[in-house]
Amino acid sequence: MAKDKEKKTKDTLKNPKGTRDWSDQDSSLLNDIFHRIRTVLSRYATQLDTPVFELADVLKGKYGEDSKLIYDLADQGGEMLSLRYDLTVPFARWLAMHPEVREYKRFAIGKVYRRDQPAIAKGRMREFYQCDVDFAGSGSSTMWDSKIVAIVVEVFEALEWQGHYTIKLNHRKILDGIFEVCGVPEDKIRAISSAVDKLDKSPWEKVRTEMVETKGLDEAVADKIRTYVVQRGEKWEGSKQLLDTLKKDEALQANAKAKQGIDEMDVILRILEVLGAHRDISFDLCLARGLDYYTGIIYEVVTEGSAPATVNGGDAQQVQREGKSKKAKKDLKEDDDRSDDPSVGVGSVAAGGRYDNLVERFLPGSDMQCVGVSFGVDRIFSITKARIAQGQKFTYVSSTATDVYIMAFGGKDFSGMSAERLLIEQMLARAGLKVEYSAKERPKPQLQFKNSEKYGAKYAVILGEDEQARGEVRVKQLGLPDGHPEKEGVLVKMENLVSEVTVRIKGLAVTEQVKGLDVIE
Amino acid sequence: MAKDKEKKTKDTLKNPKGTRDWSDQDSSLLNDIFHRIRTVLSRYATQLDTPVFELADVLKGKYGEDSKLIYDLADQGGEMLSLRYDLTVPFARWLAMHPEVREYKRFAIGKVYRRDQPAIAKGRMREFYQCDVDFAGSGSSTMWDSKIVAIVVEVFEALEWQGHYTIKLNHRKILDGIFEVCGVPEDKIRAISSAVDKLDKSPWEKVRTEMVETKGLDEAVADKIRTYVVQRGEKWEGSKQLLDTLKKDEALQANAKAKQGIDEMDVILRILEVLGAHRDISFDLCLARGLDYYTGIIYEVVTEGSAPATVNGGDAQQVQREGKSKKAKKDLKEDDDRSDDPSVGVGSVAAGGRYDNLVERFLPGSDMQCVGVSFGVDRIFSITKARIAQGQKFTYVSSTATDVYIMAFGGKDFSGMSAERLLIEQMLARAGLKVEYSAKERPKPQLQFKNSEKYGAKYAVILGEDEQARGEVRVKQLGLPDGHPEKEGVLVKMENLVSEVTVRIKGLAVTEQVKGLDVIE
Repeated sequence: MAKDKEKKTKDTLKNPKGTRDWSDQDSSLLNDIFHRIRTVLSRYATQLDTPVFELADVLKGKYGEDSKLIYDLADQGGEMLSLRYDLTVPFARWLAMHPEVREYKRFAIGKVYRRDQPAIAKGRMREFYQCDVDFAGSGSSTMWDSKIVAIVVEVFEALEWQGHYTIKLNHRKILDGIFEVCGVPEDKIRAISSAVDKLDKSPWEKVRTEMVETKGLDEAVADKIRTYVVQRGEKWEGSKQLLDTLKKDEALQANAKAKQGIDEMDVILRILEVLGAHRDISFDLCLARGLDYYTGIIYEVVTEGSAPATVNGGDAQQVQREGKSKKAKKDLKEDDDRSDDPSVGVGSVAAGGRYDNLVERFLPGSDMQCVGVSFGVDRIFSITKARIAQGQKFTYVSSTATDVYIMAFGGKDFSGMSAERLLIEQMLARAGLKVEYSAKERPKPQLQFKNSEKYGAKYAVILGEDEQARGEVRVKQLGLPDGHPEKEGVLVKMENLVSEVTVRIKGLAVTEQVKGLDVIE
Repeated sequence: MAKDKEKKTKDTLKNPKGTRDWSDQDSSLLNDIFHRIRTVLSRYATQLDTPVFELADVLKGKYGEDSKLIYDLADQGGEMLSLRYDLTVPFARWLAMHPEVREYKRFAIGKVYRRDQPAIAKGRMREFYQCDVDFAGSGSSTMWDSKIVAIVVEVFEALEWQGHYTIKLNHRKILDGIFEVCGVPEDKIRAISSAVDKLDKSPWEKVRTEMVETKGLDEAVADKIRTYVVQRGEKWEGSKQLLDTLKKDEALQANAKAKQGIDEMDVILRILEVLGAHRDISFDLCLARGLDYYTGIIYEVVTEGSAPATVNGGDAQQVQREGKSKKAKKDLKEDDDRSDDPSVGVGSVAAGGRYDNLVERFLPGSDMQCVGVSFGVDRIFSITKARIAQGQKFTYVSSTATDVYIMAFGGKDFSGMSAERLLIEQMLARAGLKVEYSAKERPKPQLQFKNSEKYGAKYAVILGEDEQARGEVRVKQLGLPDGHPEKEGVLVKMENLVSEVTVRIKGLAVTEQVKGLDVIE
């Protein structure tokens, strides 16, 4: 009986499979990241927050094979509901509900739900955060295509990832044009496109086998495709060179789709250069993206730890990258990286593109065209956390360290000096300091010193009855060596406490920084 | 067939019943409110974010009759899951999962789900935001009881509600002591307590009838209860007087529970006075709170528009309050006020108390004691929005007005000056200005002027080919009268654009403020 109860308690005491709680330092870092992303996105879009569930019909038929991963709510009488699978379809539903809105730039931050086999070690979660920005309207496609890419650059610069990421770019019209030029039959184009998308994980031979044996493509056609899709423009110079090569390709120039795609890509790259957002892009013809609904530009952001195997990359490079990635994953353990999620790509930290027909599926006749990007926030979190563990500094990461521990010695008054400790906490916390104290009414001095160590507090503020009578408290830097003139702390008038403590804490911070510099030199 | 399709589209094109989308100004105001609340709570607690669903067993048996309002997920194989009903039970589950944590101060912001009959006009939603702060540990109860109340004061001050709210305070031990002293049988205490809780909506006679006829209480006992529960301490002076009255009540002082409650309330009020958080509290003996699990202090925050009928209040006052409330509700229409939610109380904007036994229900033997408060953010939003509509100013509310509309006249270059417009947008948006522009590649001048009016932009930045060749743009204040010397705008060098425009926008803001003051005088 007692055992049964214990077992039941143990069964109940867990999160649902594939979910996590965010607490303490993880919660703090996640919020710092959200704050940076939100700051950038709110410059260019307004926030839209939709319910966590939608009518089941809204999601139905939007995700192809992945529809089986949708969480349904129980039929408790009334509407049939499902948890949202992404933030894109709810946005399209909202646009269709507001046909009077002719143009809309929105961002959204929220959790999405996928009833996939979770792989927590690999970071594939059933509940995870997405952060999207999407522009909808019927204006110039190249203007907004460029703008979304520029926003991606601005976000990763705000996250201080400069030099650590690459935005892979491609264009569906160029890809489709290439397939037509190579002689892929119309009805095989999407299937062959899916196969090409695997080139970042699989060697050409394997992809070729899929094309020829599984998908019934002519061998000569497959080999012709290879001559195109192995072309990748490394960084800006390489991207421009690749574009020039395509501009000179007479076969492509004679194909209407390819020509349109190349012309658009030309304008997009030139706009990105004007915006200073061109340095970390790589025009990559083997990027195809999983989802069917893209109609124009597509992109995917990768970083160290994303571990993309490359169609061109040598084996050594590939092994080295995979080795790195394995280590990073081991360090992260329970964090999310969604690396096996086919809709996001292997380890990409952001991905998206242009999708011009989604709103029309809700509102026949609508001409709303969309382009957007989704940031994989859990993945960005995990990589940033791993880099911090490796010693990298990020200016926006908040400290969770305790600045001050408040102690009371004595306390025969009505509250054991609880009131005074709370008052001092309130004064210091409002000044932006992290403060702790014992929640006991009359805590023993020894316990308070032990706790101040546990919290790693830099200073103690000590209340005593005699000092209180004179309107004073003692401010004591913790961890000073014996014999230091301020070892026993200094007496401070209550009215000067906030300024005295903040000056000391800030002074201490400067000293530590200088010390740190000494060590580096 | 076409009709069928249309009907289907219409059925699908809606939010689930009892939910809403947050967009535009509403989304902006909601975020401003969250930002203020989060700033205060993060001074004293760390954020904990739990999944939106829990194992069904975690929620089972925690909400009494309201358990029928829980949303269950469909059985798709695997665990049985339910959407969270509040943020308190997930916190208790987390504490029980982490028995090594002996003390924890957490806040949480998230949506919760109640499958209630929605009343959108009244603001009872099925999905709504809660924002909670709870302290768990086994320290001094009066210290943390006071601290949570002080946090409530700090939040409403941060929201600039000074003078517009009252924190009603009571103590379960005092209430239970009163019931014992009056002769309520042990097994009727919770039922009679529930009846007393209705005194803010119902007249005494109705509550008395419920006690005597429905709940079988002796008439003399009911009448004796009345002598206590009509006592309310209006504001600080009244609260102190009521406490003094109870201290002198020999019957209560002879009852162990009542005496303990009165002693605790004495310390709590004295601590609140030291913290300067005493001015807007009202010690109110008829506040009982719906939930069974409270064990000590209880509180509820009401405001104008909360429309509480009072046991003492005259009819005129009551009618006046209801009239006000009806008007406010009509203004708000679709907003949430949860006014009929019995667990929150009629129109309270925050509520909570001490609950010492909840963690033990997950982890037998645990001595974790908790006290906390839940802010009804949707309700706070609705009331703030109504006050803004009535002309009240809040310093923290962000403007969603457009500062600058960027125009291009001409644009024979590769992008129709798209690149330059995006560059100027990027410069001005990074400087904190709200910027709009046409998304068309070569928009007609007339359309651009029309749109700048639609957005209510204060300034236009105009790109022209001649000016561009000289590295200049035109900055034009919109809406100037004919004949004004700057009617046609001024030419500004690109490198000075950001400073010129921000100075002008800030200058304009000052001018408008001064004009506003003139009107008032």
